[in-house]
Amino acid sequence: MPHFTIEYSANLDAAVDMSEFCATILKAALGTGMFETGAVRVRAIRCDAYAIADQLPENGFLDMSLRMGAGRSIEAKAAIGDAVFAAAEAFLKPQLATPHFALSFEIREINPDLSWKRNAIHPRLRSGS
Amino acid sequence: MPHFTIEYSANLDAAVDMSEFCATILKAALGTGMFETGAVRVRAIRCDAYAIADQLPENGFLDMSLRMGAGRSIEAKAAIGDAVFAAAEAFLKPQLATPHFALSFEIREINPDLSWKRNAIHPRLRSGS
Amino acid sequence: MPHFTIEYSANLDAAVDMSEFCATILKAALGTGMFETGAVRVRAIRCDAYAIADQLPENGFLDMSLRMGAGRSIEAKAAIGDAVFAAAEAFLKPQLATPHFALSFEIREINPDLSWKRNAIHPRLRSGS
Repeated sequence: MPHFTIEYSANLDAAVDMSEFCATILKAALGTGMFETGAVRVRAIRCDAYAIADQLPENGFLDMSLRMGAGRSIEAKAAIGDAVFAAAEAFLKPQLATPHFALSFEIREINPDLSWKRNAIHPRLRSGS
Repeated sequence: MPHFTIEYSANLDAAVDMSEFCATILKAALGTGMFETGAVRVRAIRCDAYAIADQLPENGFLDMSLRMGAGRSIEAKAAIGDAVFAAAEAFLKPQLATPHFALSFEIREINPDLSWKRNAIHPRLRSGS
Repeated sequence: MPHFTIEYSANLDAAVDMSEFCATILKAALGTGMFETGAVRVRAIRCDAYAIADQLPENGFLDMSLRMGAGRSIEAKAAIGDAVFAAAEAFLKPQLATPHFALSFEIREINPDLSWKRNAIHPRLRSGS
Protein backbone atom coordinates (compact mmCIF):
# COMPACT_ATOMS: atom_id res chain seq x y z
CA MET A 1 0.00 0.00 0.00
CA PRO A 2 2.46 2.67 0.93
CA HIS A 3 2.79 4.98 -2.06
CA PHE A 4 5.33 7.77 -1.90
CA THR A 5 4.95 10.36 -4.63
CA ILE A 6 7.58 13.07 -4.86
CA GLU A 7 7.08 16.20 -6.91
CA TYR A 8 10.11 18.41 -7.44
CA SER A 9 11.28 21.40 -9.42
CA ALA A 10 13.42 20.36 -12.37
CA ASN A 11 16.31 22.58 -11.27
CA LEU A 12 17.09 20.07 -8.50
CA ASP A 13 18.25 17.52 -11.07
CA ALA A 14 21.58 19.32 -11.40
CA ALA A 15 22.48 18.52 -7.79
CA VAL A 16 20.22 15.73 -6.52
CA ASP A 17 20.29 12.11 -7.69
CA MET A 18 16.57 11.46 -7.61
CA SER A 19 16.88 7.67 -7.96
CA GLU A 20 19.15 7.67 -4.92
CA PHE A 21 16.66 9.85 -3.08
CA CYS A 22 13.85 7.41 -3.87
CA ALA A 23 15.99 4.53 -2.61
CA THR A 24 16.70 6.48 0.58
CA ILE A 25 13.00 7.03 1.24
CA LEU A 26 12.27 3.36 0.55
CA LYS A 27 14.93 2.37 3.07
CA ALA A 28 13.62 4.81 5.67
CA ALA A 29 10.07 3.49 5.21
CA LEU A 30 11.19 -0.11 5.61
CA GLY A 31 13.33 0.91 8.58
CA THR A 32 10.20 1.81 10.54
CA GLY A 33 9.27 -1.87 10.53
CA MET A 34 5.70 -0.98 9.67
CA PHE A 35 5.62 -1.89 6.00
CA GLU A 36 6.07 -5.06 4.03
CA THR A 37 8.93 -4.85 1.55
CA GLY A 38 6.85 -5.84 -1.46
CA ALA A 39 4.32 -3.11 -0.80
CA VAL A 40 6.49 -0.01 -0.89
CA ARG A 41 6.53 2.09 -4.04
CA VAL A 42 8.44 5.36 -4.21
CA ARG A 43 8.51 7.55 -7.30
CA ALA A 44 9.53 11.05 -8.28
CA ILE A 45 7.86 13.35 -10.78
CA ARG A 46 10.03 16.04 -12.32
CA CYS A 47 8.16 19.31 -12.90
CA ASP A 48 9.69 21.32 -15.72
CA ALA A 49 7.42 24.32 -15.33
CA TYR A 50 7.02 25.93 -11.91
CA ALA A 51 6.87 29.23 -10.00
CA ILE A 52 8.13 29.36 -6.42
CA ALA A 53 7.88 32.12 -3.82
CA ASP A 54 9.71 35.24 -5.10
CA GLN A 55 10.62 33.40 -8.31
CA LEU A 56 14.37 33.58 -8.05
CA PRO A 57 15.75 31.09 -10.56
CA GLU A 58 17.57 29.29 -7.74
CA ASN A 59 14.33 28.60 -5.86
CA GLY A 60 13.48 24.93 -5.72
CA PHE A 61 11.16 22.59 -3.87
CA LEU A 62 10.60 18.95 -3.14
CA ASP A 63 7.18 17.89 -1.91
CA MET A 64 6.43 14.33 -0.85
CA SER A 65 3.11 12.60 -0.24
CA LEU A 66 2.58 9.24 1.37
CA ARG A 67 -0.71 7.47 0.79
CA MET A 68 -1.03 4.41 2.96
CA GLY A 69 -3.53 1.92 4.30
CA ALA A 70 -5.91 3.12 6.99
CA GLY A 71 -6.02 1.84 10.55
CA ARG A 72 -2.70 2.75 12.13
CA SER A 73 -2.67 4.85 15.30
CA ILE A 74 -1.83 8.53 15.13
CA GLU A 75 1.38 7.70 17.04
CA ALA A 76 2.38 5.13 14.43
CA LYS A 77 1.70 7.58 11.64
CA ALA A 78 3.70 10.28 13.40
CA ALA A 79 6.60 7.86 13.88
CA ILE A 80 6.56 6.95 10.19
CA GLY A 81 6.42 10.60 9.21
CA ASP A 82 9.25 11.59 11.56
CA ALA A 83 11.53 8.82 10.29
CA VAL A 84 10.90 9.46 6.63
CA PHE A 85 11.16 13.23 6.96
CA ALA A 86 14.44 12.94 8.85
CA ALA A 87 15.84 10.81 6.03
CA ALA A 88 14.72 13.38 3.46
CA GLU A 89 16.24 16.23 5.46
CA ALA A 90 19.56 14.41 5.80
CA PHE A 91 19.69 13.68 2.07
CA LEU A 92 18.80 17.25 1.14
CA LYS A 93 21.02 18.96 3.69
CA PRO A 94 22.95 20.90 1.02
CA GLN A 95 19.71 22.25 -0.45
CA LEU A 96 18.30 23.13 2.98
CA ALA A 97 21.49 25.06 3.74
CA THR A 98 20.66 27.51 0.97
CA PRO A 99 17.95 30.17 1.32
CA HIS A 100 16.25 28.85 -1.82
CA PHE A 101 14.73 25.51 -0.96
CA ALA A 102 11.50 24.23 0.61
CA LEU A 103 10.84 20.65 1.68
CA SER A 104 7.44 19.25 2.64
CA PHE A 105 5.77 15.95 3.38
CA GLU A 106 2.15 14.92 3.90
CA ILE A 107 0.60 11.60 4.89
CA ARG A 108 -2.89 10.64 3.80
CA GLU A 109 -4.81 7.43 4.40
CA ILE A 110 -6.48 5.42 1.66
CA ASN A 111 -10.16 4.57 2.16
CA PRO A 112 -10.21 0.74 2.17
CA ASP A 113 -13.71 0.67 0.70
CA LEU A 114 -12.51 2.57 -2.35
CA SER A 115 -9.24 0.79 -2.98
CA TRP A 116 -8.35 -2.05 -5.33
CA LYS A 117 -4.98 -3.74 -5.67
CA ARG A 118 -3.14 -6.69 -7.03
CA ASN A 119 0.47 -7.14 -6.13
CA ALA A 120 2.46 -9.79 -7.98
CA ILE A 121 5.62 -8.92 -6.06
CA HIS A 122 4.24 -10.07 -2.70
CA PRO A 123 4.15 -13.84 -3.45
CA ARG A 124 7.77 -13.78 -4.56
CA LEU A 125 8.99 -11.98 -1.45
CA ARG A 126 6.68 -13.75 0.99
CA SER A 127 7.91 -17.13 -0.18
CA GLY A 128 11.45 -15.92 0.17
CA SER A 129 12.38 -17.15 -3.27
CA MET B 1 -15.56 15.50 -13.24
CA PRO B 2 -14.04 12.07 -13.37
CA HIS B 3 -10.29 12.51 -13.37
CA PHE B 4 -8.13 9.44 -13.74
CA THR B 5 -4.47 10.02 -12.96
CA ILE B 6 -2.07 7.16 -13.57
CA GLU B 7 1.44 7.15 -12.17
CA TYR B 8 3.79 4.45 -13.46
CA SER B 9 7.42 3.43 -13.38
CA ALA B 10 9.19 4.38 -16.61
CA ASN B 11 10.34 0.80 -17.23
CA LEU B 12 6.77 -0.10 -18.25
CA ASP B 13 7.09 2.00 -21.40
CA ALA B 14 9.07 -0.78 -23.06
CA ALA B 15 6.07 -3.11 -22.97
CA VAL B 16 2.91 -1.08 -22.34
CA ASP B 17 1.33 1.39 -24.77
CA MET B 18 0.24 3.99 -22.26
CA SER B 19 -2.00 5.90 -24.67
CA GLU B 20 -3.84 2.65 -25.37
CA PHE B 21 -4.09 2.02 -21.65
CA CYS B 22 -5.60 5.47 -21.10
CA ALA B 23 -8.12 4.82 -23.88
CA THR B 24 -9.00 1.47 -22.27
CA ILE B 25 -9.68 3.13 -18.92
CA LEU B 26 -11.78 5.82 -20.61
CA LYS B 27 -13.85 3.15 -22.32
CA ALA B 28 -14.29 1.20 -19.08
CA ALA B 29 -15.40 4.35 -17.26
CA LEU B 30 -17.94 5.21 -19.95
CA GLY B 31 -19.08 1.57 -20.00
CA THR B 32 -20.37 1.92 -16.45
CA GLY B 33 -22.98 4.33 -17.75
CA MET B 34 -22.32 6.63 -14.83
CA PHE B 35 -20.29 9.34 -16.53
CA GLU B 36 -20.93 11.84 -19.28
CA THR B 37 -18.53 11.42 -22.21
CA GLY B 38 -17.36 15.02 -22.19
CA ALA B 39 -16.41 14.85 -18.55
CA VAL B 40 -13.91 11.99 -18.52
CA ARG B 41 -10.20 12.82 -18.49
CA VAL B 42 -7.58 10.08 -18.22
CA ARG B 43 -3.87 10.81 -18.13
CA ALA B 44 -0.64 9.01 -17.34
CA ILE B 45 2.45 10.40 -15.65
CA ARG B 46 5.71 8.62 -16.37
CA CYS B 47 8.03 8.50 -13.34
CA ASP B 48 11.67 8.24 -14.38
CA ALA B 49 13.06 7.91 -10.86
CA TYR B 50 11.61 5.31 -8.52
CA ALA B 51 12.41 2.62 -5.95
CA ILE B 52 10.11 -0.38 -5.61
CA ALA B 53 10.04 -3.17 -3.01
CA ASP B 54 13.35 -5.09 -3.15
CA GLN B 55 14.58 -2.82 -5.94
CA LEU B 56 15.10 -5.41 -8.62
CA PRO B 57 15.45 -3.51 -11.90
CA GLU B 58 12.49 -5.45 -13.31
CA ASN B 59 10.15 -4.22 -10.57
CA GLY B 60 7.44 -1.94 -11.88
CA PHE B 61 4.17 -0.42 -10.75
CA LEU B 62 1.11 1.31 -12.06
CA ASP B 63 -1.03 3.24 -9.61
CA MET B 64 -4.29 4.85 -10.62
CA SER B 65 -6.41 7.42 -8.82
CA LEU B 66 -9.93 8.46 -9.71
CA ARG B 67 -11.23 11.74 -8.35
CA MET B 68 -14.90 12.17 -9.04
CA GLY B 69 -17.94 14.19 -8.03
CA ALA B 70 -19.45 13.47 -4.62
CA GLY B 71 -22.88 12.05 -4.01
CA ARG B 72 -22.90 8.57 -5.53
CA SER B 73 -23.79 5.60 -3.31
CA ILE B 74 -21.05 3.34 -2.01
CA GLU B 75 -22.48 0.59 -4.26
CA ALA B 76 -22.18 2.82 -7.34
CA LYS B 77 -18.62 3.69 -6.42
CA ALA B 78 -17.76 0.03 -5.87
CA ALA B 79 -19.28 -0.86 -9.25
CA ILE B 80 -17.22 1.83 -10.98
CA GLY B 81 -14.09 0.67 -9.21
CA ASP B 82 -14.68 -2.99 -10.03
CA ALA B 83 -15.26 -2.27 -13.72
CA VAL B 84 -12.28 -0.01 -14.14
CA PHE B 85 -9.94 -2.24 -12.17
CA ALA B 86 -10.99 -5.28 -14.19
CA ALA B 87 -10.17 -3.41 -17.39
CA ALA B 88 -6.76 -2.46 -16.00
CA GLU B 89 -6.05 -6.03 -14.92
CA ALA B 90 -6.97 -7.39 -18.35
CA PHE B 91 -4.75 -4.88 -20.12
CA LEU B 92 -1.83 -5.53 -17.79
CA LYS B 93 -2.18 -9.31 -17.70
CA PRO B 94 1.36 -9.89 -19.02
CA GLN B 95 2.82 -7.65 -16.30
CA LEU B 96 0.71 -9.27 -13.57
CA ALA B 97 1.95 -12.67 -14.69
CA THR B 98 5.48 -11.72 -13.66
CA PRO B 99 6.60 -11.56 -10.01
CA HIS B 100 7.71 -7.95 -10.52
CA PHE B 101 4.60 -5.85 -10.89
CA ALA B 102 2.10 -4.15 -8.57
CA LEU B 103 -1.19 -2.58 -9.66
CA SER B 104 -3.36 -0.34 -7.51
CA PHE B 105 -6.38 1.91 -7.78
CA GLU B 106 -8.01 4.39 -5.41
CA ILE B 107 -11.20 6.43 -5.69
CA ARG B 108 -11.60 9.74 -3.93
CA GLU B 109 -14.49 12.18 -4.01
CA ILE B 110 -14.14 15.87 -4.77
CA ASN B 111 -15.64 18.29 -2.25
CA PRO B 112 -18.23 20.22 -4.31
CA ASP B 113 -17.77 23.33 -2.17
CA LEU B 114 -14.09 23.47 -3.09
CA SER B 115 -14.32 22.69 -6.78
CA TRP B 116 -14.39 24.96 -9.82
CA LYS B 117 -14.74 23.90 -13.43
CA ARG B 118 -15.47 25.05 -16.94
CA ASN B 119 -15.85 22.46 -19.62
CA ALA B 120 -15.98 23.66 -23.21
CA ILE B 121 -16.30 20.09 -24.51
CA HIS B 122 -19.72 19.53 -22.92
CA PRO B 123 -21.72 21.92 -25.16
CA ARG B 124 -20.30 20.28 -28.28
CA LEU B 125 -21.15 16.74 -27.17
CA ARG B 126 -24.46 17.62 -25.55
CA SER B 127 -25.72 19.25 -28.73
CA GLY B 128 -24.63 16.19 -30.65
CA SER B 129 -22.77 18.28 -33.22
CA MET C 1 2.02 25.44 2.59
CA PRO C 2 0.04 26.27 -0.49
CA HIS C 3 0.91 23.71 -3.13
CA PHE C 4 -0.54 24.13 -6.58
CA THR C 5 -0.14 21.07 -8.80
CA ILE C 6 -1.25 21.36 -12.41
CA GLU C 7 -1.72 18.34 -14.62
CA TYR C 8 -2.24 18.99 -18.32
CA SER C 9 -2.41 17.19 -21.63
CA ALA C 10 0.84 17.54 -23.58
CA ASN C 11 -0.94 18.97 -26.62
CA LEU C 12 -1.36 22.26 -24.72
CA ASP C 13 2.37 22.91 -24.91
CA ALA C 14 2.03 24.06 -28.51
CA ALA C 15 -0.09 27.04 -27.46
CA VAL C 16 0.34 27.63 -23.71
CA ASP C 17 3.50 28.85 -21.99
CA MET C 18 3.25 26.72 -18.87
CA SER C 19 5.94 28.61 -16.94
CA GLU C 20 3.97 31.79 -17.55
CA PHE C 21 0.82 30.04 -16.43
CA CYS C 22 2.51 28.94 -13.20
CA ALA C 23 3.67 32.51 -12.59
CA THR C 24 0.13 33.75 -13.19
CA ILE C 25 -1.29 31.35 -10.62
CA LEU C 26 1.41 32.33 -8.13
CA LYS C 27 0.52 35.98 -8.59
CA ALA C 28 -3.19 35.30 -8.21
CA ALA C 29 -2.56 33.32 -5.02
CA LEU C 30 -0.44 36.09 -3.53
CA GLY C 31 -3.03 38.66 -4.66
CA THR C 32 -5.56 37.16 -2.27
CA GLY C 33 -3.41 38.37 0.61
CA MET C 34 -3.87 35.06 2.35
CA PHE C 35 -0.49 33.45 1.70
CA GLU C 36 3.06 34.26 2.60
CA THR C 37 5.28 34.72 -0.45
CA GLY C 38 7.88 32.18 0.61
CA ALA C 39 5.27 29.48 1.04
CA VAL C 40 3.72 29.34 -2.41
CA ARG C 41 4.82 26.58 -4.77
CA VAL C 42 3.21 26.15 -8.19
CA ARG C 43 4.22 23.41 -10.61
CA ALA C 44 2.93 21.81 -13.77
CA ILE C 45 3.14 18.19 -14.80
CA ARG C 46 2.97 17.46 -18.51
CA CYS C 47 1.07 14.25 -19.32
CA ASP C 48 2.21 12.73 -22.59
CA ALA C 49 -0.33 9.92 -22.62
CA TYR C 50 -4.01 10.71 -22.13
CA ALA C 51 -7.55 10.01 -23.34
CA ILE C 52 -10.17 12.75 -23.09
CA ALA C 53 -13.93 12.61 -23.69
CA ASP C 54 -14.59 11.59 -27.32
CA GLN C 55 -10.86 11.36 -27.97
CA LEU C 56 -10.58 13.94 -30.71
CA PRO C 57 -6.88 14.73 -31.06
CA GLU C 58 -7.64 18.41 -30.34
CA ASN C 59 -9.16 17.60 -26.94
CA GLY C 60 -7.10 18.95 -24.08
CA PHE C 61 -7.41 19.55 -20.37
CA LEU C 62 -5.78 21.39 -17.51
CA ASP C 63 -6.60 20.30 -13.98
CA MET C 64 -5.30 22.15 -10.98
CA SER C 65 -5.20 21.11 -7.32
CA LEU C 66 -4.42 23.33 -4.36
CA ARG C 67 -3.38 21.68 -1.12
CA MET C 68 -3.18 24.18 1.70
CA GLY C 69 -3.03 24.48 5.45
CA ALA C 70 -6.21 23.73 7.37
CA GLY C 71 -8.15 26.23 9.43
CA ARG C 72 -9.40 28.88 7.02
CA SER C 73 -13.14 29.60 6.85
CA ILE C 74 -15.17 28.24 3.96
CA GLU C 75 -15.61 31.84 2.80
CA ALA C 76 -11.85 32.38 2.72
CA LYS C 77 -11.36 29.18 0.78
CA ALA C 78 -14.08 30.13 -1.68
CA ALA C 79 -12.48 33.56 -2.16
CA ILE C 80 -9.09 31.97 -2.85
CA GLY C 81 -10.66 29.51 -5.27
CA ASP C 82 -12.61 32.21 -7.10
CA ALA C 83 -9.57 34.43 -7.53
CA VAL C 84 -7.26 31.67 -8.71
CA PHE C 85 -9.82 30.14 -11.04
CA ALA C 86 -10.58 33.54 -12.60
CA ALA C 87 -6.87 34.00 -13.30
CA ALA C 88 -6.69 30.56 -14.90
CA GLU C 89 -9.77 31.26 -17.03
CA ALA C 90 -8.36 34.57 -18.23
CA PHE C 91 -5.04 32.99 -19.16
CA LEU C 92 -6.69 30.09 -20.98
CA LYS C 93 -9.37 32.15 -22.73
CA PRO C 94 -8.24 31.00 -26.20
CA GLN C 95 -8.47 27.34 -25.17
CA LEU C 96 -11.86 27.83 -23.50
CA ALA C 97 -13.14 29.44 -26.70
CA THR C 98 -12.69 26.13 -28.53
CA PRO C 99 -15.04 23.17 -28.05
CA HIS C 100 -12.09 20.97 -27.10
CA PHE C 101 -10.90 22.09 -23.69
CA ALA C 102 -11.82 21.42 -20.06
CA LEU C 103 -10.50 23.34 -17.07
CA SER C 104 -10.88 22.29 -13.45
CA PHE C 105 -9.64 23.22 -10.00
CA GLU C 106 -9.96 21.58 -6.60
CA ILE C 107 -8.88 22.73 -3.14
CA ARG C 108 -8.00 20.27 -0.42
CA GLU C 109 -6.75 20.91 3.12
CA ILE C 110 -3.66 19.30 4.59
CA ASN C 111 -4.08 17.52 7.92
CA PRO C 112 -1.70 19.42 10.26
CA ASP C 113 -1.09 16.28 12.33
CA LEU C 114 0.26 14.48 9.28
CA SER C 115 2.36 17.21 7.77
CA TRP C 116 6.07 17.94 8.02
CA LYS C 117 7.91 20.87 6.49
CA ARG C 118 11.09 22.84 6.45
CA ASN C 119 11.24 25.98 4.43
CA ALA C 120 14.62 27.62 3.93
CA ILE C 121 13.12 30.38 1.79
CA HIS C 122 11.05 31.86 4.63
CA PRO C 123 13.96 33.26 6.70
CA ARG C 124 15.34 35.06 3.67
CA LEU C 125 12.04 36.69 2.77
CA ARG C 126 10.95 37.36 6.34
CA SER C 127 14.16 39.23 7.10
CA GLY C 128 13.68 41.21 3.91
CA SER C 129 17.23 40.51 2.81
